[in-house]
Amino acid sequence: MDSDSNCCCEHSKQKQLRISLKDIASELGISQTAVSFAINDKPGVSAETKKKVNEAAMKLGWRPVYAAQALGSSRTMTIGFAPTRSYDELKDESFMLHFMAGAQASLSKRRYGLLYQPCSSMKEELATYEDWASRKRVDGVILVNLQDNDPRPARLKELGLFAVLAGGPVDSDWLLSLSIDDSQVMGCILDNLLESGHKRIAYISGDSSLMYSKYRQKSFQMFAAEKNLDKICVEYTGFKPENAARITMDLLTQEDPPTAFIYETEILAIASLKAMTEYLIKRDYEENTHRYYPYKLPAIVSFEDSFICESSYPSITSVQRDASEYGSKVANLLLKVIDGENVKGDRKILTPRLVLRDSTLLYKR
Amino acid sequence: MDSDSNCCCEHSKQKQLRISLKDIASELGISQTAVSFAINDKPGVSAETKKKVNEAAMKLGWRPVYAAQALGSSRTMTIGFAPTRSYDELKDESFMLHFMAGAQASLSKRRYGLLYQPCSSMKEELATYEDWASRKRVDGVILVNLQDNDPRPARLKELGLFAVLAGGPVDSDWLLSLSIDDSQVMGCILDNLLESGHKRIAYISGDSSLMYSKYRQKSFQMFAAEKNLDKICVEYTGFKPENAARITMDLLTQEDPPTAFIYETEILAIASLKAMTEYLIKRDYEENTHRYYPYKLPAIVSFEDSFICESSYPSITSVQRDASEYGSKVANLLLKVIDGENVKGDRKILTPRLVLRDSTLLYKR
Repeated sequence: MDSDSNCCCEHSKQKQLRISLKDIASELGISQTAVSFAINDKPGVSAETKKKVNEAAMKLGWRPVYAAQALGSSRTMTIGFAPTRSYDELKDESFMLHFMAGAQASLSKRRYGLLYQPCSSMKEELATYEDWASRKRVDGVILVNLQDNDPRPARLKELGLFAVLAGGPVDSDWLLSLSIDDSQVMGCILDNLLESGHKRIAYISGDSSLMYSKYRQKSFQMFAAEKNLDKICVEYTGFKPENAARITMDLLTQEDPPTAFIYETEILAIASLKAMTEYLIKRDYEENTHRYYPYKLPAIVSFEDSFICESSYPSITSVQRDASEYGSKVANLLLKVIDGENVKGDRKILTPRLVLRDSTLLYKR
Repeated sequence: MDSDSNCCCEHSKQKQLRISLKDIASELGISQTAVSFAINDKPGVSAETKKKVNEAAMKLGWRPVYAAQALGSSRTMTIGFAPTRSYDELKDESFMLHFMAGAQASLSKRRYGLLYQPCSSMKEELATYEDWASRKRVDGVILVNLQDNDPRPARLKELGLFAVLAGGPVDSDWLLSLSIDDSQVMGCILDNLLESGHKRIAYISGDSSLMYSKYRQKSFQMFAAEKNLDKICVEYTGFKPENAARITMDLLTQEDPPTAFIYETEILAIASLKAMTEYLIKRDYEENTHRYYPYKLPAIVSFEDSFICESSYPSITSVQRDASEYGSKVANLLLKVIDGENVKGDRKILTPRLVLRDSTLLYKR
């Protein structure tokens, strides 16, 4: 199809606005080949011509075509990000966008771009890396959500793609990782709940096959054992809010129910808070007891923060992490790896902060 | 720095795994130049050699280097997305990620990538387009959030970058747009509220400088005039949840307060719901009236849907749009524009759906 005649917009007429080597050649009255040799610093043209060409290029605002530069430098100047978004779609949204914005901030300084290609399965994610490697599409990739027996580190090594894991620690001689230092958080939450008199605590987790879910569950059990709690329980939800709400109500209507609930994500917390609110308000109404809600609500803590935690009634105490700074640091490490710098991975960075809100403070009144 | 000796990981040793023209040359026992000529279908090698080279390339799994292909085809095979994320950061998150995932689904089918570079200001967004155009980094860009006197369409035309606007309609002879057909939504919301007996309705909008905010406000006033409502009011929040909550409480404590509130985003709605809940529960407790909350809560409608609307108590009636399908259609249109196809823009696509939830249904009980 002839785009000049058929395109209803005027797009096609605009293309020649980019400054080309031809423009520089006309400006100086020399051949295009001479300009190309001069620009690429090849032998065959005089130092004087090279100087003239470079001056004219600067004056006219010429910039090397990205693909030519990438081809010449053996660098694609592109980082790939192809996370599988399946069960944790809901919970990841806010964190992911801030993470990407942070990564981009680091990459932009080095004129790198972020190629974003969300995948629907691990199989698709692996195929994406194979495609990128075979076409030399990116210089490296950022990994997230490491799993048990994760096939990605080994495959990326085979493919020769540089990578950094946001998460970990990872048991690999090849893959570097940066993880948020969550080691103190669980202790901080439990100390806080204990101070308010809680001795029966439930931990409502995400998915037992995710490394970070496992790690948090372990530290919950370890701290709980240290503190001699009366009763603890751990339940898995598969990150489904409806499961969290159901499990919470089951626990709450048992004998000696937990007086505090810790949720892996704010999505699990908010769905459970809704179920509890509905139940408690209705019960008080039916029993004709006139109480000021949220009286009798158990304490609630979310392991992830977002606007939802602030805006719910009561607001939810939660763990705040700087996703944007995290993304920025992960991207910086990847650029260093690509540059062949002598860097170490498996580092824990950024200490998260427990933000106390009404869902735990009300008990202290 | 010598990356082979200094890099603590084994990244650098993996690079040779990509199949190169040299590998094909060794496989066939011919020169690399011959292979290159054959692959690029240039004269100088026999048809038989070309056939052999292509067969060997397929067998070995050779794929053209992305940058070489981009340089040869005059296509970068990349679409740019550099939205300015300022005042509406909070509200856009969920919609944006689904929109991008949908766009990527369309682009992947054509082996295009999405280069994502969020900007902090309009100035930065324009500079990004200038950089992309001067380096031939992308074939086209997706625009969002059209503003009054928006400088982007004219600048992109000058730069010779193809573009499609997600939004609109737009007054441009050059820029094509696809917008979600919101024309029926406001009428649908108002009909619904009227049926439940609401005659005093407030519209809590985002920002009067955004085209879509303006458009919605106009249709609110038009429909309201048609239906002979007792009282309407329109207030702007700058998309700040704290402003929405304050304005809502101001209106609610006036004489003859609105009985229904329509919010431009779910973020504005949820912050206001929290303020109202706190106020109403406290008032009932202090007045010693034993009521089953959410009795006396005004009707609430959000013009945007997300998990927040489902999970709040009471759940919030809201307008659902398929962001992923929208992204997919916008990307498809942009690819057609790039291909020089004879396409028309300024079309309204996808009719959103009003999802009725407790925040308006409770009135009907």
